[in-house]
Amino acid sequence: MSRFSKIAFVASEMREAVEARRALAARYGDTPPDRADVIVALGGDGQMLQTMHRYLNSKIPIYGMNRGSVGFLLNDYREDHLIERLDHAEVNVIHPLRMTAFDDHKAEHKALAINEVSLFRQIYQAAKLRISVDGRVRLEGLICDGVLVSTPAGSTAYNLSAHGPILPIDAPLMVLTPISPFRPRRWRGAILPNEAVVLIEVLEPEKRPVSAVADNTEFRDVIAVEVKEASDVDIVMMFDPGHSLAERILREQFDY
Amino acid sequence: MSRFSKIAFVASEMREAVEARRALAARYGDTPPDRADVIVALGGDGQMLQTMHRYLNSKIPIYGMNRGSVGFLLNDYREDHLIERLDHAEVNVIHPLRMTAFDDHKAEHKALAINEVSLFRQIYQAAKLRISVDGRVRLEGLICDGVLVSTPAGSTAYNLSAHGPILPIDAPLMVLTPISPFRPRRWRGAILPNEAVVLIEVLEPEKRPVSAVADNTEFRDVIAVEVKEASDVDIVMMFDPGHSLAERILREQFDY
Amino acid sequence: MSRFSKIAFVASEMREAVEARRALAARYGDTPPDRADVIVALGGDGQMLQTMHRYLNSKIPIYGMNRGSVGFLLNDYREDHLIERLDHAEVNVIHPLRMTAFDDHKAEHKALAINEVSLFRQIYQAAKLRISVDGRVRLEGLICDGVLVSTPAGSTAYNLSAHGPILPIDAPLMVLTPISPFRPRRWRGAILPNEAVVLIEVLEPEKRPVSAVADNTEFRDVIAVEVKEASDVDIVMMFDPGHSLAERILREQFDY
Amino acid sequence: MSRFSKIAFVASEMREAVEARRALAARYGDTPPDRADVIVALGGDGQMLQTMHRYLNSKIPIYGMNRGSVGFLLNDYREDHLIERLDHAEVNVIHPLRMTAFDDHKAEHKALAINEVSLFRQIYQAAKLRISVDGRVRLEGLICDGVLVSTPAGSTAYNLSAHGPILPIDAPLMVLTPISPFRPRRWRGAILPNEAVVLIEVLEPEKRPVSAVADNTEFRDVIAVEVKEASDVDIVMMFDPGHSLAERILREQFDY
Repeated sequence: MSRFSKIAFVASEMREAVEARRALAARYGDTPPDRADVIVALGGDGQMLQTMHRYLNSKIPIYGMNRGSVGFLLNDYREDHLIERLDHAEVNVIHPLRMTAFDDHKAEHKALAINEVSLFRQIYQAAKLRISVDGRVRLEGLICDGVLVSTPAGSTAYNLSAHGPILPIDAPLMVLTPISPFRPRRWRGAILPNEAVVLIEVLEPEKRPVSAVADNTEFRDVIAVEVKEASDVDIVMMFDPGHSLAERILREQFDY
Repeated sequence: MSRFSKIAFVASEMREAVEARRALAARYGDTPPDRADVIVALGGDGQMLQTMHRYLNSKIPIYGMNRGSVGFLLNDYREDHLIERLDHAEVNVIHPLRMTAFDDHKAEHKALAINEVSLFRQIYQAAKLRISVDGRVRLEGLICDGVLVSTPAGSTAYNLSAHGPILPIDAPLMVLTPISPFRPRRWRGAILPNEAVVLIEVLEPEKRPVSAVADNTEFRDVIAVEVKEASDVDIVMMFDPGHSLAERILREQFDY
Repeated sequence: MSRFSKIAFVASEMREAVEARRALAARYGDTPPDRADVIVALGGDGQMLQTMHRYLNSKIPIYGMNRGSVGFLLNDYREDHLIERLDHAEVNVIHPLRMTAFDDHKAEHKALAINEVSLFRQIYQAAKLRISVDGRVRLEGLICDGVLVSTPAGSTAYNLSAHGPILPIDAPLMVLTPISPFRPRRWRGAILPNEAVVLIEVLEPEKRPVSAVADNTEFRDVIAVEVKEASDVDIVMMFDPGHSLAERILREQFDY
Repeated sequence: MSRFSKIAFVASEMREAVEARRALAARYGDTPPDRADVIVALGGDGQMLQTMHRYLNSKIPIYGMNRGSVGFLLNDYREDHLIERLDHAEVNVIHPLRMTAFDDHKAEHKALAINEVSLFRQIYQAAKLRISVDGRVRLEGLICDGVLVSTPAGSTAYNLSAHGPILPIDAPLMVLTPISPFRPRRWRGAILPNEAVVLIEVLEPEKRPVSAVADNTEFRDVIAVEVKEASDVDIVMMFDPGHSLAERILREQFDY
C-alpha cells in the first residue's frame, strides 16, 4: 500500500490549474491539507513557493505539478499514475532563511524566505549598507541598489540575475550578492557557510530609505536586517526520479 | 586679456559651497549666468549635473570646482588664479541623450540625460521589455529589474554598477546595459553607435509597471521609451590640463 | 556593366572549398589576384583571415563565401548570380593593428593583426606585465596569463572569450583585455581610442617568459610589444546587403 | 608540556628562508620530518605548497611562516614563542584532488592537487573538451583555452583569475571553471558537490593538443583527465588564532 493514501490538492487561480485540481480530486479524492500525507500543488513556481510558505511548519511533503509558465520547482503535469509517481519520488529537504527586520520605529518583523532575502533602495537615491558576518563588520559602506542573501534553492532566481553564483542544492551554504554595486564597484559578493549570521545595517536611512523583502513579503523603511538559516524549519519537496532539485540546479549550471 | 572676464558663480546649498561662492564672487565679481562668459559651479557632482541641465542650451562653458563629496566631473577647488586656470583649461563638448517616454495615457514626456536613461520596475514584479534598435527588434522579452542607456560620460556611473563597460569620452557610442537580467540571464548588453535609436517597450504594463528616469527626472507608468543622442545639444565643460574628462575616464578604466 | 569583371578565386585546402573554386572558376573565369577587381575567398574564417593578410596592401576588395565550419566573416555560399551579388554588396573598410615586438636579443619583429595582438605566458609561471598607454604607465605589474589588444572586428573572437566587450565595427576604438588576471584580480581591461599607442613590457622575462601573437604569427621570448592601429592599411571587405559586418557584430551583442 | 616537542624545519632556497631556518633550528632544535610532531615551513606559498605535497601522507601537521613574497597560506614570521604559537594554533584539515590523466599512449598518470587541476591548450589552437560529471555528459564540446577544477583552498588562486567564485574553506565542494571559453561563450562554470567525479575528454587531440597540470606537475598530450576529491588524504595545516584559512578566504571574498 502507498504511503500516500490521503492527498491534498491546492491550485493557483489560473484556469489550467483549477481544472487540473478538479480532475485530480475527482480521481484521487481530496483531503484537507492539515490531514494529508502529501500536498500536490498545481500552478507555476509562484504557486509552489506560496504553498511551501503556507505549510512550512507542517512537515507534510509537497509535490508540485506544472500548470504555469515557469516550472523550475515542479514536476511535469500528468493525471495518470499519481500514486505511483509519489511512491517513487525523491525527497529534498531544504531550509529557509529567517529574516528579522527592524524598522525606524524599532518594530521587529520576522519572515521566512525560501529563495532570498533582499534589501533594495526605495527611491532613486542609492542605498548605503554596512554588512557584518558573525558579528564582525566586513563591508563598511556598500553603496548600491541593494543586496541579497540567497539559499541554494534560490541561487538560480534573483541571485543569478544579480550575477551571483549557482550553489548545489545540498551545499551547507548561503550566498550574499550585491545588486548594482556602486562602491566598492567591483565587489562581487561572498559565499558563506550556512551557519553564518548576516547583519545588514542601513546607513543614512532618512536620505536613503530601504525596504527588505523575504521572498515576497516586504517591509519598508528598515534600518537593520538580520539573516540566518532557519535550520529548525524543514521544507520537504518531492521530485520524480532523475528530476530532483539537485539535478535541476546542476543542469542550470551547465546551461548557457 | 582673458576670454573670461564675466564669470557666473552657482553653488549647491552645502555650507562649503555657499562660502566658496561668496569668497569667489567678492574676488572675481559675479555676473548673471545668461550674460556670463563662463559658469563656475561649486559643489559635488550632483550640483555639476544640475548646472549642466539648467544651462544646456546656452552653450556657455561650465567649469566645476569640487566642494562636495564626489568630484568626478570637477576640478580641484582653489580660490587663487581662477582666470589663469580658465584660460588654460581644456574643453570637452559632450551631447546628452534625449528620452521620449510615453505613458499609459499616451502622453509624451521629453527629457535630456547627461549620464543615463534608465527604466526600472516600480514594484517587486520584474519588468518585461522589448528592445529595438533602429526599428528592428533585437530582444523580444527581456525579464529584468530594468535596463539603461548611458552616454560615455555616464558610463562610469550607474552603467558601471550594472556591470556595463566604461567608454572613452570621445567615442561616438552609447551603451545599453541590463539591470539584473533574469531572462535571457546571461545577456550582457550592447555597445551601440551614437546614431542608434533605441526603443524600449514595456510589456504587460499593468502587471509589470515600469518607470523611466533621465538622470533624475522620473516618469512613472511608461509604456514605451525612445532614446537617442541629442546631437544638436552641446554641453561645454572645462577641465584643468591633464585632468580632462578623457583622462578621468581612462584612469577609471585602470582603477581596480 | 559590372565593376567586377575580373574575379580571383582563392580557396582553403578543404575539399568543399576546392570544389567550389573549380565550379566558380569554370563559370566566371579566374584572374590572378594581383590583377583582379575582387578576390573571392572560399573556406572558413581561417581562410578569410589568411586571404586578408596576404592581400593587405593591395586594396583589392575581398568577398568571402562560406565553405568552412565557422563563417562569421563570410557570405552564404551560392554559385549563381555572383556578379549581381558583388555589384550589390556593402563595403566595410577596416584597419589592422600593427604590432612591433622586441625580443631578448633586441631584434624587432613587425606583424599586422586583423583580430588581435595577444601576449601569453610561455610556461606555467604567470606573466608579469607593465602596461603603458601613450607613453604613460597605467598598470605597473599585471600578473596574469596574458593580455590582448583587439580591433572591433576581432572583439567577438579571443577578446570575447577573455570576457572583453564587443565593439561596433565602425567605432574608432581598440580594446585591451586581460587574460586570467591574478593581480590586480578584478581589473577588467579598458576600451581605448583608436589612436592610442599601447606598450606592454615583460617584467622578469627570464623567470616569466612570454610570447606575442599577431593573429597567428607568433614571436617567442619577447621583452616588449608596442601595439597601435595601422591606419595606413585598408582592408576592404564586401558583404551581401543586410549581412554587413556591422550587422553581424550587432547580432552577436544581442545573442546570449 | 607541549604536544610539539619535536619540530622539523624546512625552508625554500631563498636567503631569508635559509637564515630563518638556521636561527630557529638553533633555538628549538631540528628533527627529521618523518619523526617530527610538526613541520614548520619557511618561505612563500610556493614552498608551503611543496611541503604539503611532500608530506601529504604523513598526517604530520604543517605550520608555515612567511619568508617569501606571497603568504596566503602562511603565518607571520617571528622567532619568539614558537612553541606557544603551535600550542594555540587552529587546525584546518583539507583534502586534495586526485587527478588521473591518460595520455595518447594510454599511459595513466596520477597526481594530487592541493589547489587545482587545470587543462590547457599546448599550442595556439584552442582546446575542445567534453565534460562529464558522475558519468553524464554535461558539456559536449567546450572550445576554450582550458578548464580547471579547484578545491576551496585553491579557489582564491588560478580559479579566481579565471573568474571563478571563492568557496568557503569548509564547504564540501569543488569548482569547475572555464579558462577563456570561446563556445559556449557565456558559460561561467559550475560549483559541484565534493563527491562529484569530473571527467574531461580532449576532442581532436592531434589538432588540439592539451596538457594537464596538478598544482605544478604537468603531463602533456593528455586525452582524458578524471578529477575527484582524495577524501582519503588529509592535509593538516595550522594557523594562528584569528588567522585561519577560513578567515583568510572570507577576507578575500570581502576584498575588492
